[in-house]
Amino acid sequence: MAGLERAWTDPRLTGFADRATLAEARDWLDGCAPALGAERVAAGQAAGRVLAEAVALPAQALSAARAGIDGYAVRAADTLGAGDYNPLLLRLLDRPALPAGAAALVASGTRLPEGADAVLPFELAQPSGPGGIEALGPVAQGAGLERRIGQDRAGAVLLRPGMLLGAAQAGLLALLGITEIRAVRRPRVALVIPGPKDDAADALGPMLRALLERDGGEAAFLPPPAPGRDALARSIRQAAELADSVIVAGRSGAGPDDAAAPALRDAGGALGLHGIALRPGSSAGLGRLGGAPVLLLPGTPAACLACYEMLAGRLVRRLGGRPVSLPFPSVPVRLGRKIVSALGFADLVPVKLADGSATPLGAAEDCGLEAAARADGFVLVPEGREGHAEGEQVVAWLRDPGAASDAGLSAHA
Amino acid sequence: MAGLERAWTDPRLTGFADRATLAEARDWLDGCAPALGAERVAAGQAAGRVLAEAVALPAQALSAARAGIDGYAVRAADTLGAGDYNPLLLRLLDRPALPAGAAALVASGTRLPEGADAVLPFELAQPSGPGGIEALGPVAQGAGLERRIGQDRAGAVLLRPGMLLGAAQAGLLALLGITEIRAVRRPRVALVIPGPKDDAADALGPMLRALLERDGGEAAFLPPPAPGRDALARSIRQAAELADSVIVAGRSGAGPDDAAAPALRDAGGALGLHGIALRPGSSAGLGRLGGAPVLLLPGTPAACLACYEMLAGRLVRRLGGRPVSLPFPSVPVRLGRKIVSALGFADLVPVKLADGSATPLGAAEDCGLEAAARADGFVLVPEGREGHAEGEQVVAWLRDPGAASDAGLSAHA
Repeated sequence: MAGLERAWTDPRLTGFADRATLAEARDWLDGCAPALGAERVAAGQAAGRVLAEAVALPAQALSAARAGIDGYAVRAADTLGAGDYNPLLLRLLDRPALPAGAAALVASGTRLPEGADAVLPFELAQPSGPGGIEALGPVAQGAGLERRIGQDRAGAVLLRPGMLLGAAQAGLLALLGITEIRAVRRPRVALVIPGPKDDAADALGPMLRALLERDGGEAAFLPPPAPGRDALARSIRQAAELADSVIVAGRSGAGPDDAAAPALRDAGGALGLHGIALRPGSSAGLGRLGGAPVLLLPGTPAACLACYEMLAGRLVRRLGGRPVSLPFPSVPVRLGRKIVSALGFADLVPVKLADGSATPLGAAEDCGLEAAARADGFVLVPEGREGHAEGEQVVAWLRDPGAASDAGLSAHA
Repeated sequence: MAGLERAWTDPRLTGFADRATLAEARDWLDGCAPALGAERVAAGQAAGRVLAEAVALPAQALSAARAGIDGYAVRAADTLGAGDYNPLLLRLLDRPALPAGAAALVASGTRLPEGADAVLPFELAQPSGPGGIEALGPVAQGAGLERRIGQDRAGAVLLRPGMLLGAAQAGLLALLGITEIRAVRRPRVALVIPGPKDDAADALGPMLRALLERDGGEAAFLPPPAPGRDALARSIRQAAELADSVIVAGRSGAGPDDAAAPALRDAGGALGLHGIALRPGSSAGLGRLGGAPVLLLPGTPAACLACYEMLAGRLVRRLGGRPVSLPFPSVPVRLGRKIVSALGFADLVPVKLADGSATPLGAAEDCGLEAAARADGFVLVPEGREGHAEGEQVVAWLRDPGAASDAGLSAHA
């Protein structure tokens, strides 16, 4: 924990004396916790999970080649010299092993009978009497076969740790008869929403739950604490005991009742950073209690969203073994209108895409959740810039990848 | 239905006489069914759904301005002329309405008391006695306020039909007190897997279920039909009655037991296309039964996957009101090794990304599911090309967007 806590100046009623940069906050987060441990997961539930241990080729999967096309399994040597004017007769058999001079009907994907080493396509064959076909052309050894799984040896690594498993991997596990994998545990994030109970506080729960699920985490809601610093400290302590990480959404700021930071310290936690040069969201704080990272996010919905995207989401993805970068695509795009920003703050500006350009929906510091919800994505103006000119090319991050194709941009070229 | 069925030539034991291009198949799919109707969905379940009807600003949301920062709500006029050498005293009050000469503590995101029209930041204030503060600088009307939701009128459209709802939208609905929306129904897709029951057939169910869920659909599994064309026809009829669309996975090909196409016709359905110039997956067929599109996909796992991505997924996304394009990003990338393809076939080639370039894992026609599962994505070689040269720039579609950032590519610039 040494080195993780900076000197803390209580910002209440005075404002933040200085703020960490976004890069400093990310460095703090990246040093804060490694990926979680592994757990056993049924192969049928593997999609959407991150692999913790390699999946290796089981010995039984090496046994037989499969047809890659529909046709007749043959011994390639039997078709040598075959042609339209030299049809070669093959007996049709349906046996586990194929003798010389024989052929067996196979469908694409099925195992070849033993002894067969090629598949003759229907286009190169014609029926000949009740129990035979004629080969009308030669096929080479291996022709028409599916590439063998793991051509090398049993135990060869097929799927590497860290891979986010999807449909193809779920299918492969079933194909190989693997019933269980070891996946990185889903990060369990306890949510404390101190309130007061109003419409802004109402917005935080559904929003954070959807964000956590998107990033492979699980939300655990704690009952809203009673008003005041003591109850909030108890709530934070309880949250840190039951979860891998804690998000306190609200009361991070400089108001007299903004007790999130002092309550974290009361609870025995360390406050690493408080106040971040990010708009909206400049009152966010990062700390720890026991082993659990504790993130203090603003209670203003748009600021909470911005801090989740720029800070909390990164931690959740890291804990869950996912890439830390934003989990949606970015596209280069021209600005349809200038963005004015403030030096010293990274500004997250919601933009709407149309006709191949991005129009900002307002300034970072006064855009509410409505703008974020109507936007297709956002532009992040770095802290060293005072904004971007109209027509300037910037990078837009797209929460809804469909928006890029609608706007004729290249994420879906 | 007129115009949707082409003359069908039974491919069994002879092969496909001609194949539709991928573009023809997509045109057929796009003409085949519009988006599904709407259903009521609780706002708490809105994330991941597609909005069917606009969400408009409720009248009650217009009532009050909100603080955009922490500080003191004031009447801006009361601060005119304030300065370090001219501090102006304001009484601290906590009331629903703010009289002239008063200030009220507010946190960012909370509603302003009536009469207040600006927020004085803590930096411009200092305590003065038990019940007052001194303003040390002037603030303009509107300063420190959150941009008002829907500055225009009640009923203004906030979220448009067709939008895929995420966390920000879920939060906004809660913020506005909206408890229910109308969303496009989730496409229910009945899956018929004729078998025979083997490891290849085992792979299809988990794979297709994960693909359907990814695209916002729901899988309904039918019991595997008994062997033979009649049982398959009954299964297809039953599937078409209970679902919005049917996928028959397996038995689409040119083998003697490949009864999917004839069984669809036996069931009273129309076969629009059978045989597609796509590798893997060239035996796919597209048809209809009653109102339900029926997709015949190959039973070879890798071919089934390719046909889902290129054909079935497009239909599912269209039915569910989503953009039809592939639901994952693409990046321009240089080929680390040449790709050989066949003129007349669109080839789907799995690629692995590393060091900023893409390496093909094999040829389209002989890559099994292992290659697809190990790949980061794929390159689609159009049917008019015989391949791509080493070093040529192509477009890679990335199933796992994390792969692009690992490989230093621009999807996560």
